[in-house]
Amino acid sequence: MTTNDSILVVGAGFVGLATAAFLATKGLSVTVAEKNRFIVDSLEKGKLHFREPELAKRLKAAVGVKRLRVVLPSREIYQKASIIIVAIDSADQQTWKMKLAAFERMAAWIGGVKRKQPAMVLLKSTNILGFAGLFRGLLDQSAFGREVQLVVNPEFLREGFAYEDTAHPWRVVVGADDLKARRRVVRFYKKLLSASVPIIQTDCASAELIKLGANLYLSHRLAFIHEIAEYAHLHSLDLAAVKQAIGLDPRIGAEYFEPGLGFGGSCLPKDCYLINSHESETGFTFHTAETALEINERVLTNIVTTLQSRLSSLKHKKIALLGAAFKPETDDTRGSQAVKLALKLRRRGAKVTVYEPFLTGADQIVEGNLPLVHNLNEALTNAHVIVIGTAHYRFRNLRPKTVATLVKNKLVCDRFGLLNRTTWEKHGFEFV
Amino acid sequence: MTTNDSILVVGAGFVGLATAAFLATKGLSVTVAEKNRFIVDSLEKGKLHFREPELAKRLKAAVGVKRLRVVLPSREIYQKASIIIVAIDSADQQTWKMKLAAFERMAAWIGGVKRKQPAMVLLKSTNILGFAGLFRGLLDQSAFGREVQLVVNPEFLREGFAYEDTAHPWRVVVGADDLKARRRVVRFYKKLLSASVPIIQTDCASAELIKLGANLYLSHRLAFIHEIAEYAHLHSLDLAAVKQAIGLDPRIGAEYFEPGLGFGGSCLPKDCYLINSHESETGFTFHTAETALEINERVLTNIVTTLQSRLSSLKHKKIALLGAAFKPETDDTRGSQAVKLALKLRRRGAKVTVYEPFLTGADQIVEGNLPLVHNLNEALTNAHVIVIGTAHYRFRNLRPKTVATLVKNKLVCDRFGLLNRTTWEKHGFEFV
Repeated sequence: MTTNDSILVVGAGFVGLATAAFLATKGLSVTVAEKNRFIVDSLEKGKLHFREPELAKRLKAAVGVKRLRVVLPSREIYQKASIIIVAIDSADQQTWKMKLAAFERMAAWIGGVKRKQPAMVLLKSTNILGFAGLFRGLLDQSAFGREVQLVVNPEFLREGFAYEDTAHPWRVVVGADDLKARRRVVRFYKKLLSASVPIIQTDCASAELIKLGANLYLSHRLAFIHEIAEYAHLHSLDLAAVKQAIGLDPRIGAEYFEPGLGFGGSCLPKDCYLINSHESETGFTFHTAETALEINERVLTNIVTTLQSRLSSLKHKKIALLGAAFKPETDDTRGSQAVKLALKLRRRGAKVTVYEPFLTGADQIVEGNLPLVHNLNEALTNAHVIVIGTAHYRFRNLRPKTVATLVKNKLVCDRFGLLNRTTWEKHGFEFV
Repeated sequence: MTTNDSILVVGAGFVGLATAAFLATKGLSVTVAEKNRFIVDSLEKGKLHFREPELAKRLKAAVGVKRLRVVLPSREIYQKASIIIVAIDSADQQTWKMKLAAFERMAAWIGGVKRKQPAMVLLKSTNILGFAGLFRGLLDQSAFGREVQLVVNPEFLREGFAYEDTAHPWRVVVGADDLKARRRVVRFYKKLLSASVPIIQTDCASAELIKLGANLYLSHRLAFIHEIAEYAHLHSLDLAAVKQAIGLDPRIGAEYFEPGLGFGGSCLPKDCYLINSHESETGFTFHTAETALEINERVLTNIVTTLQSRLSSLKHKKIALLGAAFKPETDDTRGSQAVKLALKLRRRGAKVTVYEPFLTGADQIVEGNLPLVHNLNEALTNAHVIVIGTAHYRFRNLRPKTVATLVKNKLVCDRFGLLNRTTWEKHGFEFV
């Protein structure tokens, strides 16, 4: 890749913007294509539409010096670009089916013109296994698509660290069946990244398995600690000691090992579904993925059962759900287990009042049209039970003495171990 | 514990002997009770009956200076002992039922006499969840059993490092419901171990969950990498790159991540069964344990199916199984997946010839009376397929050119990636 390369990033989500901002910071000019006009307008002013502090700063700077621009997608920008970095939501979040139409159009646009140097497509989006082969087929059907170099180059960003993880990744995976394409991308990354970053070179299909496999492992790690926590809860065991002692084996480790309401977000549950997608027709079932999802679901159904039996019935009971984001200190409710729990409780007739301190601009959560209240006291007043939905740090500061004066029942469900149970119990609260 | 304490270790397996040898090395006098007379005789001469190099050395030294003696169990030695460390096989390896009769007798013997200071029982054996409560009940029924202090103090030894892991453990878990007992054991370990070893104090039931939970996690980690390897094998992917790239996430890690024929041994599969034992009546199912065992079984059935379809039928086909131990560089075939595979193949009519270089003293493997040959060439001659059963280092040195002259078919099944595939393929071998 040279400075003559025209770089197009498709999709202005975490991944696309982090990649674009990183390339711009390194001195390259980048165009981002985004189909949502509101997002385009907001980004053109340098304003990020989600919470990602470092990325927001870098983005503003890059837009300021005109190294980064955000536009609506068009045939023209695809045809002008020589490097196309695909970072769009590739699967429908309800059905987990691939959004194939978008890729068909993209393939036709990319392969529609003849170029001096072959266009290079980097697939950053997570897809079903075998997707690169499928996309290759689409490219090959277009006029000049056979010349296009296709590389599976998965992202491994942690939410909240999208920029940091792009600039200092634990590893870069370059998956291409064509060796020339592979080498071209490796050269590109070697120029941009520190020499200590491992670059793994492999074929397309193996790179796809790396991405889904890594997220499957992480999902399972979280499912495991939830299964342990569930058992510990049922038998009133010493979860803190159990977690600590298990994690002290260095082959297990203590990081990324916090139980709560299960694992959520826009990646892990999705990838557990995608790896067993029927669309991939691999003839193989990843049992670990099925199990991780099963355990994740059981966490919620067990809470519903517990609350139902403790409150006799959930009908008309007010439930104060504190936190709806899938991850503490973020406003991201995508794939949130707290939201799933709220919807389950509502289906049983409960009145769920959601307080999410990081979501101040919205009146409701899109999924299930869950109404939000923006006042903590309003959420707590006359509540039959308080349920911790997200381990936001600020909830630790809740004072049981004050809370006791507001609620109807002194009942708490805190699967994160966020509140100081001893103190709360002293004030008459019961933990379920 | 004082120098007046009389220490009894029950069971002369890995755990019992490593504990006894460690205490003796630290200057304490230890009696080991073992019901197998042959083992008693052999150990009294300072000779260890399994392969564990460092332990063998320490044991010989301790027996030599008369700090350690091994005897047959009797009521008398139990009643004389003030500290009883239980390290016997607690579950039947076929049915996974607890060997309760042994514990009933033990409880009656320990609780049969009145002592100045209460006897202390350390349970090192892995048991079903809730076993300590069950054993407490047995003790309470004996004459003076209520005074006995019961502590769950699980072992976390790696095979091949039994002594090293006892002397330098990653953590020590002291689980007791009685605080006095807990403190007594903590003082004991603080005197023996480096100050940097974390000691986790908790209740009996939590300590039981720590042990089974840790082994469940490790089982699942291995099951996961086998599931990935299985998929990679089916689709001819680049497993080395996949494994490396997934393991580069520090939350995942690269250690203890080697695929092969599944996970075996005397601990991991057992603990996956025990954690869901019906005898424990916990009313809870660990889905992760069921899944790990399922994946482990699938590895073998897929190999049987592959070989059957490749050889048309397995009837009268000679299969050279190289390695039968569950772990490289050991002679331990307990819970070995290689042995399980051999039995599966034999049930389909195959003639399985097992060559296990570390088992030189035996003519057959106890499980399934699998006959052993002690000559590699004898195993290979006229073989229809070579199956790597254990990743013993020496098999890397096999020369395909020589092997080709011996076998009937140039067919290899190596799920460990032990052999250099490119070289073997150059000599006409096919990998299935």
